[in-house]
Amino acid sequence: MPVLTDQAAPDLFLSGLHPALGDGLLTSVTFLNEVAGRYPGALSLAAGAPYEGGWDLEDVHAALRRFCAHLRDDRGLSEAEVRRTVLQYGRTKGIVHELIARHLSLDEGIEVDPEAVVVTVGFQEALFLSLSALRRDPGDALLAVVPAFVGLTGAARLLGMPVVPVPSGPDGVEPAEVARAAREARRAGLRPRACCLVPDFANPTGSRMSLAQRTGLLEVAAAEDLLILEDNPYGFFPLDGTRLPTLKSLDRDRRVVYLGSLAKTVYPGARIGYVVADQVVAAPGGGRLLLADCLARAKSMVTVNTPPITQAVVGGRLLAHGGSLAAANRREARFYRDALTHLLDGLGRRFGPGSGVRWTRPAGGFFVTVEVPFEVTDTELERSAGEFGVIWSPLHHFYDSAAPLRLLRLSCSSLSPADAEAALDRFASFVGTVAAENGQRPAAGG
Amino acid sequence: MPVLTDQAAPDLFLSGLHPALGDGLLTSVTFLNEVAGRYPGALSLAAGAPYEGGWDLEDVHAALRRFCAHLRDDRGLSEAEVRRTVLQYGRTKGIVHELIARHLSLDEGIEVDPEAVVVTVGFQEALFLSLSALRRDPGDALLAVVPAFVGLTGAARLLGMPVVPVPSGPDGVEPAEVARAAREARRAGLRPRACCLVPDFANPTGSRMSLAQRTGLLEVAAAEDLLILEDNPYGFFPLDGTRLPTLKSLDRDRRVVYLGSLAKTVYPGARIGYVVADQVVAAPGGGRLLLADCLARAKSMVTVNTPPITQAVVGGRLLAHGGSLAAANRREARFYRDALTHLLDGLGRRFGPGSGVRWTRPAGGFFVTVEVPFEVTDTELERSAGEFGVIWSPLHHFYDSAAPLRLLRLSCSSLSPADAEAALDRFASFVGTVAAENGQRPAAGG
Repeated sequence: MPVLTDQAAPDLFLSGLHPALGDGLLTSVTFLNEVAGRYPGALSLAAGAPYEGGWDLEDVHAALRRFCAHLRDDRGLSEAEVRRTVLQYGRTKGIVHELIARHLSLDEGIEVDPEAVVVTVGFQEALFLSLSALRRDPGDALLAVVPAFVGLTGAARLLGMPVVPVPSGPDGVEPAEVARAAREARRAGLRPRACCLVPDFANPTGSRMSLAQRTGLLEVAAAEDLLILEDNPYGFFPLDGTRLPTLKSLDRDRRVVYLGSLAKTVYPGARIGYVVADQVVAAPGGGRLLLADCLARAKSMVTVNTPPITQAVVGGRLLAHGGSLAAANRREARFYRDALTHLLDGLGRRFGPGSGVRWTRPAGGFFVTVEVPFEVTDTELERSAGEFGVIWSPLHHFYDSAAPLRLLRLSCSSLSPADAEAALDRFASFVGTVAAENGQRPAAGG
Repeated sequence: MPVLTDQAAPDLFLSGLHPALGDGLLTSVTFLNEVAGRYPGALSLAAGAPYEGGWDLEDVHAALRRFCAHLRDDRGLSEAEVRRTVLQYGRTKGIVHELIARHLSLDEGIEVDPEAVVVTVGFQEALFLSLSALRRDPGDALLAVVPAFVGLTGAARLLGMPVVPVPSGPDGVEPAEVARAAREARRAGLRPRACCLVPDFANPTGSRMSLAQRTGLLEVAAAEDLLILEDNPYGFFPLDGTRLPTLKSLDRDRRVVYLGSLAKTVYPGARIGYVVADQVVAAPGGGRLLLADCLARAKSMVTVNTPPITQAVVGGRLLAHGGSLAAANRREARFYRDALTHLLDGLGRRFGPGSGVRWTRPAGGFFVTVEVPFEVTDTELERSAGEFGVIWSPLHHFYDSAAPLRLLRLSCSSLSPADAEAALDRFASFVGTVAAENGQRPAAGG
């Protein structure tokens, strides 16, 4: 494989390509993956990927067969029609829309016309299509909670859509902050179109919005004429087993576009997400269509359709559990509950009141934000990986800025209990060493 | 399911969404599919979809198993690593890049570093990412051969990228026309960045560029500082079994970005395409990266990665044939050769010199363009579907204009020989009826 040196004669200049491609936002995912790749012996408290312990490739075969049997037996398709459904070009909005609508009814109290569902290549395409559609011109802005997963702001950047930040922390998103950001956008001459957020166990803060915050947010959306893009990948994993209603289930006037991900609840490798877009769109001639159909038009120019083969795998998984994704994830929900409890307890056992280390105590999900008594840059991450054999995520990657922070994110999702214990030992050793070098004397303990 | 009436209170206005969503270009695919759906009894000479006759769902299972065995036996992965590769989040540029590079070497004489390959969700995402990257600002234009598949100009439209047409016909694309379009773009204050075309058996003209046209095009690309986006879905299906070299295999100075589709050669339902982007990009700080890595950054914001499950299916199919896609498609190549011969002969038997019907005689691929002695609008298509039970594609859908043409496209790819024969009978009956009603007296026959 040719190695690219600085002397290689260039064919193109990065400065001549899309400005987002040189953006730190788009390179930070690559950087974090690359660190993980360079230190294969390091234990990862960085990965937000789901736990692989219960996976079996035979389940993929079984799910595909089950979905095909469903087409044959429940839907009356001939063998040729089954083959066509799974292997040929197909419906732009997908082939498991009815199963997804049924899951939303069973598990989320969301009643939706299957025609309002567009099956996408993961959450990311659901977001990308939604933002594409909502951006009429460069004056259309997105309100986005920060800190947040880079894919959210990165998609807006690639689409040339300005992002107005909505500050958030361990206590969730305050509706008044969303209203303030909308007004700030208008003062800057922008049209705020939508606000994107994760109400349940957000990445990276782990925060959950209260019921009052949820209803307040819907009121703000109506008052400020905003759509809410609700992203819900972690809702099935509360610590105490109780769930709060999704924004979409509380939505009485179609203010919420619901962005679903099945990466954490089926397989990331299926790359199946979806968007529920039941908003009624008026066409110039007087006709009406669903926002979902507008998103499908955009999708036909981005990926044509979502691979029906992997839709079938997801469909089969749902069918095996009576259509309920919650039922399909009972074992996973227990695993993540134990893992988060273990992570929080483990931090408590290792960092006392005098350690200068504090952390959030989320009510569920995968993520804990940790404050340490020194600045956390990518250099500290490299050292932690190389010298201490443990990786985690510097929190500055979740902000649209390189300003150094004393914050990092730990994830409990991908390690076995024994590996998590070892990873925490290594992490404590790393933090203790760097804090001692810096001669930090913290004011208060965790 | 709720029916949307014109009286439904709208939540949004189409005029407030992305302008491309109301565009005829983006709705024409939907329209054509919808006609097919409304007349299920109609035989389709419209669909460019591959023939399903030889498909077997068990082959999907076998291909997935074969790829996993390859990871295990040839690449030495553990069971856990195999599961992770196929089911977990993974490499943005894909997991079958080495198999695709090997196929390109074996079948196309294209020698390429696997790191320059990005596996995408079909050809469409390969195109979309390439255009995204090449569009720095609204002054960056695409040169596109017309008539062409709507996905090509539709993607540019969604990205807000102006398209400068390069006229083409049954005799391929003249390099001088590309140069002329580049200069026209510059006169209009635009920067022509790339020219997108299908050198082999283009859709809808069926034309194949000669070797002289190919080398001439590469010279024009160098002289006008253009990239060539080469789309090659039909190259394996020449009538006489002989192939001309791809532009990429003739490319000596990395002018060609090669856009691959496996929809016609494996399954559309796998949604696997790829882009070969070996261009060297100079970063502002003095570093170098491959254009493929820039496309991967964009991809991480659009679909994150291509489903490894369906990559594995495609990988398994390649492995079953020694890595050669040509070998994997021997049966299909024979089928399409016979189908195109049958279509051309069938037209000859039905439309004599006095019929006023003429058609192209492509050297391969799926498509024949037919001129009829009356204007062909969507109304004629509706009538053909409803009264005569046969559908085809009005050629105006391949132009960025609603101007009526006397042209339509027939495809030979998806019908069995018996159905194709019946479809041609119905088509002849439709043409004869409408021509007689119009009282047309043509000047020359086909």
